Amino acid sequence: MIGMKRVHKSSLSQGMLVHAEDLRSSTSVVTICGYGESSFWEEQTMDPEECKKLLERKAPVLWINVDGLAQLEILRELGNYFNLHHLTLEDILNTMQRPRQEAYENYTYVVFKVLNYNNEKDKIESEQISLIIGENYVISFSESDKDNFGILRKRVKDDKSIFRKKSADYLAYSLIDLVVDDYFAVLEKSGELLENLETTLLTNPDEKALQELHCLKREMLKMRQAVWPLRETLVGLEQSNHVFVHTEAMLHLRDVYSHVVQIIDNIEIYREMLSGLFDLYLSSVNNQLNEVMKVLTIFAAIFIPLTLISGIYGMNFEYMPELSWFYGYPLSIGLMAAVAITMLYYFQRKKWI
Amino acid sequence: MIGMKRVHKSSLSQGMLVHAEDLRSSTSVVTICGYGESSFWEEQTMDPEECKKLLERKAPVLWINVDGLAQLEILRELGNYFNLHHLTLEDILNTMQRPRQEAYENYTYVVFKVLNYNNEKDKIESEQISLIIGENYVISFSESDKDNFGILRKRVKDDKSIFRKKSADYLAYSLIDLVVDDYFAVLEKSGELLENLETTLLTNPDEKALQELHCLKREMLKMRQAVWPLRETLVGLEQSNHVFVHTEAMLHLRDVYSHVVQIIDNIEIYREMLSGLFDLYLSSVNNQLNEVMKVLTIFAAIFIPLTLISGIYGMNFEYMPELSWFYGYPLSIGLMAAVAITMLYYFQRKKWI
Amino acid sequence: MIGMKRVHKSSLSQGMLVHAEDLRSSTSVVTICGYGESSFWEEQTMDPEECKKLLERKAPVLWINVDGLAQLEILRELGNYFNLHHLTLEDILNTMQRPRQEAYENYTYVVFKVLNYNNEKDKIESEQISLIIGENYVISFSESDKDNFGILRKRVKDDKSIFRKKSADYLAYSLIDLVVDDYFAVLEKSGELLENLETTLLTNPDEKALQELHCLKREMLKMRQAVWPLRETLVGLEQSNHVFVHTEAMLHLRDVYSHVVQIIDNIEIYREMLSGLFDLYLSSVNNQLNEVMKVLTIFAAIFIPLTLISGIYGMNFEYMPELSWFYGYPLSIGLMAAVAITMLYYFQRKKWI
Amino acid sequence: MIGMKRVHKSSLSQGMLVHAEDLRSSTSVVTICGYGESSFWEEQTMDPEECKKLLERKAPVLWINVDGLAQLEILRELGNYFNLHHLTLEDILNTMQRPRQEAYENYTYVVFKVLNYNNEKDKIESEQISLIIGENYVISFSESDKDNFGILRKRVKDDKSIFRKKSADYLAYSLIDLVVDDYFAVLEKSGELLENLETTLLTNPDEKALQELHCLKREMLKMRQAVWPLRETLVGLEQSNHVFVHTEAMLHLRDVYSHVVQIIDNIEIYREMLSGLFDLYLSSVNNQLNEVMKVLTIFAAIFIPLTLISGIYGMNFEYMPELSWFYGYPLSIGLMAAVAITMLYYFQRKKWI
Amino acid sequence: MIGMKRVHKSSLSQGMLVHAEDLRSSTSVVTICGYGESSFWEEQTMDPEECKKLLERKAPVLWINVDGLAQLEILRELGNYFNLHHLTLEDILNTMQRPRQEAYENYTYVVFKVLNYNNEKDKIESEQISLIIGENYVISFSESDKDNFGILRKRVKDDKSIFRKKSADYLAYSLIDLVVDDYFAVLEKSGELLENLETTLLTNPDEKALQELHCLKREMLKMRQAVWPLRETLVGLEQSNHVFVHTEAMLHLRDVYSHVVQIIDNIEIYREMLSGLFDLYLSSVNNQLNEVMKVLTIFAAIFIPLTLISGIYGMNFEYMPELSWFYGYPLSIGLMAAVAITMLYYFQRKKWI
Repeated sequence: MIGMKRVHKSSLSQGMLVHAEDLRSSTSVVTICGYGESSFWEEQTMDPEECKKLLERKAPVLWINVDGLAQLEILRELGNYFNLHHLTLEDILNTMQRPRQEAYENYTYVVFKVLNYNNEKDKIESEQISLIIGENYVISFSESDKDNFGILRKRVKDDKSIFRKKSADYLAYSLIDLVVDDYFAVLEKSGELLENLETTLLTNPDEKALQELHCLKREMLKMRQAVWPLRETLVGLEQSNHVFVHTEAMLHLRDVYSHVVQIIDNIEIYREMLSGLFDLYLSSVNNQLNEVMKVLTIFAAIFIPLTLISGIYGMNFEYMPELSWFYGYPLSIGLMAAVAITMLYYFQRKKWI
Repeated sequence: MIGMKRVHKSSLSQGMLVHAEDLRSSTSVVTICGYGESSFWEEQTMDPEECKKLLERKAPVLWINVDGLAQLEILRELGNYFNLHHLTLEDILNTMQRPRQEAYENYTYVVFKVLNYNNEKDKIESEQISLIIGENYVISFSESDKDNFGILRKRVKDDKSIFRKKSADYLAYSLIDLVVDDYFAVLEKSGELLENLETTLLTNPDEKALQELHCLKREMLKMRQAVWPLRETLVGLEQSNHVFVHTEAMLHLRDVYSHVVQIIDNIEIYREMLSGLFDLYLSSVNNQLNEVMKVLTIFAAIFIPLTLISGIYGMNFEYMPELSWFYGYPLSIGLMAAVAITMLYYFQRKKWI
Repeated sequence: MIGMKRVHKSSLSQGMLVHAEDLRSSTSVVTICGYGESSFWEEQTMDPEECKKLLERKAPVLWINVDGLAQLEILRELGNYFNLHHLTLEDILNTMQRPRQEAYENYTYVVFKVLNYNNEKDKIESEQISLIIGENYVISFSESDKDNFGILRKRVKDDKSIFRKKSADYLAYSLIDLVVDDYFAVLEKSGELLENLETTLLTNPDEKALQELHCLKREMLKMRQAVWPLRETLVGLEQSNHVFVHTEAMLHLRDVYSHVVQIIDNIEIYREMLSGLFDLYLSSVNNQLNEVMKVLTIFAAIFIPLTLISGIYGMNFEYMPELSWFYGYPLSIGLMAAVAITMLYYFQRKKWI
Repeated sequence: MIGMKRVHKSSLSQGMLVHAEDLRSSTSVVTICGYGESSFWEEQTMDPEECKKLLERKAPVLWINVDGLAQLEILRELGNYFNLHHLTLEDILNTMQRPRQEAYENYTYVVFKVLNYNNEKDKIESEQISLIIGENYVISFSESDKDNFGILRKRVKDDKSIFRKKSADYLAYSLIDLVVDDYFAVLEKSGELLENLETTLLTNPDEKALQELHCLKREMLKMRQAVWPLRETLVGLEQSNHVFVHTEAMLHLRDVYSHVVQIIDNIEIYREMLSGLFDLYLSSVNNQLNEVMKVLTIFAAIFIPLTLISGIYGMNFEYMPELSWFYGYPLSIGLMAAVAITMLYYFQRKKWI
Repeated sequence: MIGMKRVHKSSLSQGMLVHAEDLRSSTSVVTICGYGESSFWEEQTMDPEECKKLLERKAPVLWINVDGLAQLEILRELGNYFNLHHLTLEDILNTMQRPRQEAYENYTYVVFKVLNYNNEKDKIESEQISLIIGENYVISFSESDKDNFGILRKRVKDDKSIFRKKSADYLAYSLIDLVVDDYFAVLEKSGELLENLETTLLTNPDEKALQELHCLKREMLKMRQAVWPLRETLVGLEQSNHVFVHTEAMLHLRDVYSHVVQIIDNIEIYREMLSGLFDLYLSSVNNQLNEVMKVLTIFAAIFIPLTLISGIYGMNFEYMPELSWFYGYPLSIGLMAAVAITMLYYFQRKKWI
């Protein structure tokens, strides 16, 4: 089901950090790396205290990546160190959020979803990503302990990478860009399913296909729910003048924006195609019914008159001249054949057979 | 039925306070509490005169909560004391209003709905809340005598609570936030019903499921009617510059706003899913019809030819050589079996059985 | 039918006053009343000349109410006296107009519809109201000779009424407000019909209910056509700065505006519910078909095999051992019973019976 | 079919005038008339050279009306004389254009459609009108040689007509107004058809009605295609400050605008009603099917058991005591009657008969 | 399938040029031509080095056309020479882009789709075009090696052509205009298919027509996907003030814009008509079912009672007086005929036959 488990917090005091729902991970792994044009270091810890110490190491750009939200203490430490607003901390923990951005005095908070197509369960899995983008640091929070951004860390590590010459906003852009690229993969998978479904429905529509159609429709709704609001989030980022201020950064942001718009376009088209496929299914069910009824009608219309003929010559009247004719029997059979052939001809002209 | 009982007042003089419809409560309980960083007092009364006196007690922030709209005298007293416009007073009594905000010279009027899912009647119940937000006071009116905001009063009472350091706008925000949090609970309940319905429709669709589907659709319409206008109400509050003027207050307001947008998103998704479920129902009804017709056709197509055969050998012609064959009877039964098997084979190839 | 009878005037000279269509009334009754804080007078006439004279009587606020558009001479007199544009006069006579407002140099023209639910014909009746709002006068034109605003005149007459202290714009607001209040009555009636229809469709859907559904849909379209444009009309009035310039007047205008928005909201919801009811009807028709087919199939599947059995033992073969068995007959009946019971069991397991 | 025959010009050099498609007329008739407060003259020609000479005659307002686009030479002469942009000339010849206006340096180009309901072919016919509105002249181009604006010329001729005191923009307004008035006639005709269709569908729906419904739907699409863009065209004219600059002219423009909005409103309502009628048709087809199936089921359910009874007593067992009863035959007939009556009672209780 | 094959690049390093998907062409042909009012030269090469040299030849306007994206080296050379941003180069290679424009410091990037109707495969083929519009040069990239713009080159070659007097922006406009003109051809072809489909569905609807309908729907979706975003692209170009700055250029741009709007209008209308055709199909399938069922019902209702009569007189009761009547047999046949005629009369009155 899409989205709404235990998100409300009516009975909780405001201003207190709590998990809004079942945790996706029982641990919190913090990976901190600092880099500049010529330097790079990377450390990993699961201990809040150690985390606090690591933050003291200076670097031109600091990237703190947190996988798993189990350890509230770590969140609190980061909140204190970077002076994060308590609403931001609450939002990071509330993993049912709509993608959006919020500019605070000293940082910008961005929340969005990473999507993956789970082939085994045949459904799209969604995980919430929160970004805190400060002047010279980026903090990224993932819901699960899957290392979503490992691939980026490897690129940053590379001394010749473009990251090393760029500021924190380029890192933020890259994180968003990576997630948006994953959307394309999910879209491609959905496109394949859609294509298969179309072939099935054009050749051999059955109830299983209908259920697949229904599921795909739901997955597309889910995807739309994740991607649509990202569009205005990016517009908000562009207009807020907090993070992406250089022309160069603007160009990158607009590039991601155009990808998101392209994805939304495709989701809408898939949704229209799915609705077209449902129409196709419905009319082929109706066509099948027509076929069934034609078979029944043809059988009934041919055999019922024949049965009547046999019934007539099965009557027990004393005076039925035909009964004593020598050729009565073959004549009656012949009559039946003639009726049957007439009916067949009639139905053929009606193009039923 | 959604919304429209005896709201019109065509035959009433304008400018006179009357109840627009049947009262939800026969009493009006006024709970006044004043608080500041270090002080807190709380009084409760049902008497207009006493209420008037209580208002004289000064406090940095004054919260007047009125549960039940039966006592017009109390409304009039509050109107006089706080210099409320007669249109505001009329609006408070007209409990069929669309959520909206209206900025008056010395206060802002906000009206919205609190929603609860009534498990017994299986429907969403809605109650109108009116807020008068002044410089240093908040007046909240509830339609029924259920103490909707008791939980907040307890928090305010707590000496260490954040309320005690904040001004009246934070109280107003908290009241709206509490109501919006309740929307999530209603949404969660609806989500559960939707999930159950989906399972039912995929496995065993019947007319009862259709009626549940219809009811859920209606409840979602009702919810949408309550939540949609709240969105623009909050935008109006943000832009009006009357109440939420501090940056801090703005952040809180935007937080509630993002929750409302999230709820609207989910309502729309639920509505789309419900419409998808109806499609599913419709096609499974069609499929069932197909099934029924196949059973009928198979029966008819197998037995009618057999009946014809038996009819033929029941004819009374004098010269029917088969009748006197020793193996005539078993042969005719064999012929019937052959026809039946042929038909079964035919239908199996058509994948009907 | 909604809207379009003989509205075109292609063959008429422009600038000449003519009736655009069949008149609703054969007379024109002019009721003029003038009032101020301490004075009030009221006169009624059907004669253009007398009307001209009456206009000379001065008063702080002058309200000219014209019921029925038959007397073109009266319209011409008023047009001359108040210097009305010929387009305004044409618009007043063209009773098929879309609600809108138009600001002229010395007055504002507002046109809208008054709605009434005619219980006998079971349809909504609409009548066009034109208002000319000048600095210190209001002219109201009604299509029929029904005294739509009599109730207001009574209120104005009352020495203590709020009207006597207000200027012409308050009178204009009251006229619009009165009409909008009537919309609520129509909406309430429609809501009742909708509720009844829903009950009917959930319990006993028949073709009559379908036709009622269709009619109600049409009436809602008609109502929407009348109310939707009023919304932007009111926005136009607010922005035009011609009529409602005082803060106080603005508040009243916004109050009417919020009522109109509420009505539009409800119309849309009713329309969605009606479309939901149509879905309900459609699927219950399908369900009924399923039921019919199940009955047929059960009958056919049980009796056709039995008929075959009876047919077999009705064959005339000479060597049929069963025929001469003593218990042949009861055994054959027993076989039939066994087959019937098997079939019944089969259909019960399929949950058809 | 709506719209798209040979409009593309890919293989033609740009900047060269060609006909975009089959001509509606093989001639081009130019009617030039000049008028002022006290003067009026009118000339007609089909010769480009003569046309050139006629243009030299001066007048306060010059109206050149061209019926039929066959003579490219005339277009070229007018283009040279009035200094028209080559894009304008191309647009005049491309008769598949969307209504729009384009302000050039020294004139404004307006293109729109005149609509007529052709009673014989039962379809709406559309013809493109192009207007060139200059400071003191108006050029109007019609696609066919039908004199669309003859009626206006007659009015201008009249010495007392309002045209004689007005400038060119009033003429332009009158041309547009005349065309918009014709829309009302088409709308009225469509409304009648819709009403007839509704009556047919409520009483006796058949396949012919469905096809009429389909055609009316298409005609409404066509009409919408012609009228919708006119709305923004008029808004564009109002905002462009090129043509309609006087307050008086603005009032006229807004009047036409309000008519166009009214027509669009009605088209949308007709479209909704048509879609409602389709729903009505669909469900009455379903209802008919139900009726047919009920008849079949009732017949089958009554007669099949009776046939079984007759079959049983037609069996040839030696020991069947009933056969030799004296009242066996009437008893068996009585049994049949009893079964038939029971079945009839059963179906009457089910309200099938 | 619409759109989404291997577009994601998650696993690739950013800033590196790669092909986003299967190439449409294995070569890259560069055609460079320079022209001014009195000069023109044209060169063609497939070698990056030679290309570099050719770029050195000066001309008032330089047009570099690249057909096929196989040679990354050529792209890189052009990128270096004209100082193109690496995001632009990536976008040129990513051939799944949504039409859009992006203004860079020294040039404007425009991407859109050229459409062709492939008559053999009965589908619309789409190819991506990228334009780089600089101060005095235009670079056009086509996905395939089909020479899309050959026709334009011929016109430029012509000494008297308008191109020779215009700057680079006119060339850019002509390239876009040419592509938009092709859209009209595709639209015309689709219109023809739609018309044929309509005739088929009104006379002889079968499952093949349904599949054609489905395909046409998909092709229209595809076309819409290509054309819709072009609209805002052109608006963006108009507002960006980078390319089309002269009034003259603006007029041309607006002309293309109006064509695009016209095409979008028609696509939407086609989509509505297709959905209307689906409704038509669905109801004619339902009508067919009705017909089939009527045939069945008529047969059953006529013959089943006759069979009963024959069954009755086939019963073996000893005392059945009719059996020994001399006219028993013809009387029974007469009874059957009477029943049959009654039934026929009944069905004729019901208008089933």
